[in-house]
Amino acid sequence: MGGVRIALLGATGAVGGEMLKVLEERGFPLSGLKLLADANDAGQRIRYGGKEYLVEEAQVSSFSDTDITLVAVGNEVSLRFTPEAVKRGSVVIDNSSAYRLDTKVPLVIPEVNPEDIRWHKGIIANPNCSTIIALVALKPLHDYAGIERMVVSTYQAVSGAGRQGSAELEVQARDYPLGRQITPAVFKYQIAYNVIPQIDDFLENGYTKEEMKMLHESRKILHSESLQVTSTCVRVPVFRSHSEAIVIETGRRLSADTARALLGKAPGVRVVDDPARFSYPMPLDTSDQDLIFAGRIREDISRENSLSLWVCGDQVRKGAATNAVQIAELLLREGMLGKGSAS
Amino acid sequence: MGGVRIALLGATGAVGGEMLKVLEERGFPLSGLKLLADANDAGQRIRYGGKEYLVEEAQVSSFSDTDITLVAVGNEVSLRFTPEAVKRGSVVIDNSSAYRLDTKVPLVIPEVNPEDIRWHKGIIANPNCSTIIALVALKPLHDYAGIERMVVSTYQAVSGAGRQGSAELEVQARDYPLGRQITPAVFKYQIAYNVIPQIDDFLENGYTKEEMKMLHESRKILHSESLQVTSTCVRVPVFRSHSEAIVIETGRRLSADTARALLGKAPGVRVVDDPARFSYPMPLDTSDQDLIFAGRIREDISRENSLSLWVCGDQVRKGAATNAVQIAELLLREGMLGKGSAS
Repeated sequence: MGGVRIALLGATGAVGGEMLKVLEERGFPLSGLKLLADANDAGQRIRYGGKEYLVEEAQVSSFSDTDITLVAVGNEVSLRFTPEAVKRGSVVIDNSSAYRLDTKVPLVIPEVNPEDIRWHKGIIANPNCSTIIALVALKPLHDYAGIERMVVSTYQAVSGAGRQGSAELEVQARDYPLGRQITPAVFKYQIAYNVIPQIDDFLENGYTKEEMKMLHESRKILHSESLQVTSTCVRVPVFRSHSEAIVIETGRRLSADTARALLGKAPGVRVVDDPARFSYPMPLDTSDQDLIFAGRIREDISRENSLSLWVCGDQVRKGAATNAVQIAELLLREGMLGKGSAS
Repeated sequence: MGGVRIALLGATGAVGGEMLKVLEERGFPLSGLKLLADANDAGQRIRYGGKEYLVEEAQVSSFSDTDITLVAVGNEVSLRFTPEAVKRGSVVIDNSSAYRLDTKVPLVIPEVNPEDIRWHKGIIANPNCSTIIALVALKPLHDYAGIERMVVSTYQAVSGAGRQGSAELEVQARDYPLGRQITPAVFKYQIAYNVIPQIDDFLENGYTKEEMKMLHESRKILHSESLQVTSTCVRVPVFRSHSEAIVIETGRRLSADTARALLGKAPGVRVVDDPARFSYPMPLDTSDQDLIFAGRIREDISRENSLSLWVCGDQVRKGAATNAVQIAELLLREGMLGKGSAS
C-alpha cells in the first residue's frame, strides 16, 4: 500500500522532464522513483517532491522492483530496454513509436480508448503527439457521426524536436533580422520566419512517417480499419503547442451546433469558438496545460456530411507526458499493477 | 507609339511599391507615370527608371490621359476612384476585392485564364493572393483531370497585411524572448511564435471572407460553378510568401508522376519535389521572385482520384503586383488599350 514504484527512462530529456512535472502536479502516489538516462547524463541531479534524485545510467537491472516504467527515449533505446523492464515485472508506458503498431500492444489515449489498457501484456504505447491532439477532439464526433475520412494539415511547434528545437528557433529569430549567418542544426532548414513541410523521414508513397502515423495510429485507437486519413505535417516557428486544421467526412450529418455541444461535454476538450469575439484556439494559449482547445467549428461548404475544425494542444504535455501519466493513473485505478504497488 | 501611360493608385503602399519594382524589372514600355496616394502620402518622392516622381493626391481628374490605372488600395478607395478612371478612358487593373465577383468584370490570372481579358469593360480584377498561388499550380491539373473539390489549409505571411505586418513580427520576435510586453496592433493577437486561424472577417457560415474568396474566385477563374472548395486560412510568423497544403479531388485519376510532368511544363510554376534530397517548396525560398513552387506531390492515400500537394509563392509579387503587371502586358500584347498608347 506504499504507492507505485516508477522508473523513468529518459529523465533528462524534454518529455521526461515534463513527465516528472506532471506526476508531481497531479500528486501521483509514488513510493519509489528511479531516474534513468544514458551514460552522458548520468550523475545529474533532479528535484522531485522536495527531494533530490541522482540520475543513474540505465542498465537492464535498473528495472527490477519497479511497477511502472515510463519510457521517454527514442525507438532504439526503447527497443533495448522495454523488453527487459517487462521481463522484470514492470509495466512499460512507452512514448517512442517502437511498439505503437504492434498488435500485442495497446495504444491508448485515456479520454478515447481507456478500455484498451485491459489487454496489455506488459507494454502500453503512448501515441504520436499530433494523433493525440486530433483524436481527443474527434472521438466524440466519431461516436456520434462515424468519421470516414480525415484531411489534416498540421502546424507543429519546434519543441516537438526536443529542447534544442526551441533554442534553435530563438537564436535564428534573433539573428535573421540582423543579417547574421543562420546555421540550421536540429531542423534541416532555417525554421525562424519559415515553415518546413517535412517532419520525420519520407516514405516511398511520398508521405512522411509523421503523416503515416496519423493514419495507422488513428485506425488502431478508434478501432476503425476503414478510416481514411491524409495529412500534411508542417513545422512552424512556434515554441510550443501543435495546431491542426482538420476536415472530417462522416457517415451521417453532424451540424456545427451538435459538434460544439458534443465537444462542450467531452473529457479533455475546451471549446474556444466564438468568431464574433475573435475567439479561437491559438498555440500561445494552449501551452503548459492539458486540454485540447477546439474551435473554428463549421459545416464544410464543399461537401455533405463534412465538418471543419481547428484544434490546438500542448504536444509536450497532453501530446506526450500527460497522456503517459494518465495511462499510469488508469492502470492504478483499474488495479492492473503487479504486487508491491498500491493497487 | 510612345508606350503606355500608367497611373498607380496606392503608390506608397507595399503592393504599389512592388508594382513599380516589377514594371521596372520587366522593362514595361511606359510613356507616362502618375503616382497617386491619399493626402497623407502625397508629396513623397519615388524613384523609377532613374527619375524621381512626385506622389500626387489622387483626384478624379488624375486619371485623364492615362491608358492603364493600377489600383493597389483597399475596397473603399477603389470603389471611389475606379469608375472615375474608367469614365476617363483608362483601363483599371484593380487589386482590391471590390469588383472581383462582379459579373461584368473579368478576374484574371494570365497563366490561367488570359482569354477573359477580352471581355473587359474597363475594369479587370486581380484575384486574392492565396487564390492566385493555388490556381497557377492547379490549372494544368484541372485541365487534365477536372478538379471537383479542393481542401486547402494556408500558411500566410505577415506581409499580406502590408508593411506594418512585417514590422510587427520583427518587433514581437525580438521582444517576446526578452519577456517584454507584446502589444498587437496590425494583428489581433501576438503573431510571433504563434499562428492565428483568422484572416479577414468572419461570415455567418463560420468561414472568413478570405476563405470564401478562395471558393468564389476559383469558380470564376476556372469557369467551374460546380467546383467545391473548403479552406482554413491561417496567419503564420513568416515575413513573406504564402504556403498552402492542398488536396484536390478530381474527375479522373491523376498520378503523382503525371501531375509532376504537367507542372513541369506549366507556365509560372517550378516543381521542387525531390524528397530524397529534402527538396520541397518553402516560403524562405520563394520570396522576391514570381514563380509558384510546387512540391510534396503525392497520390492521396485516403481516396481514389485525389492528389495532395504543397505550394509556395510570393504573395506580394505573383500574388498581387506581378499578376497585375502581367495583365497590363497582356492588354498591350492583345492590342486592347485605347488610343494614345503603344498598341
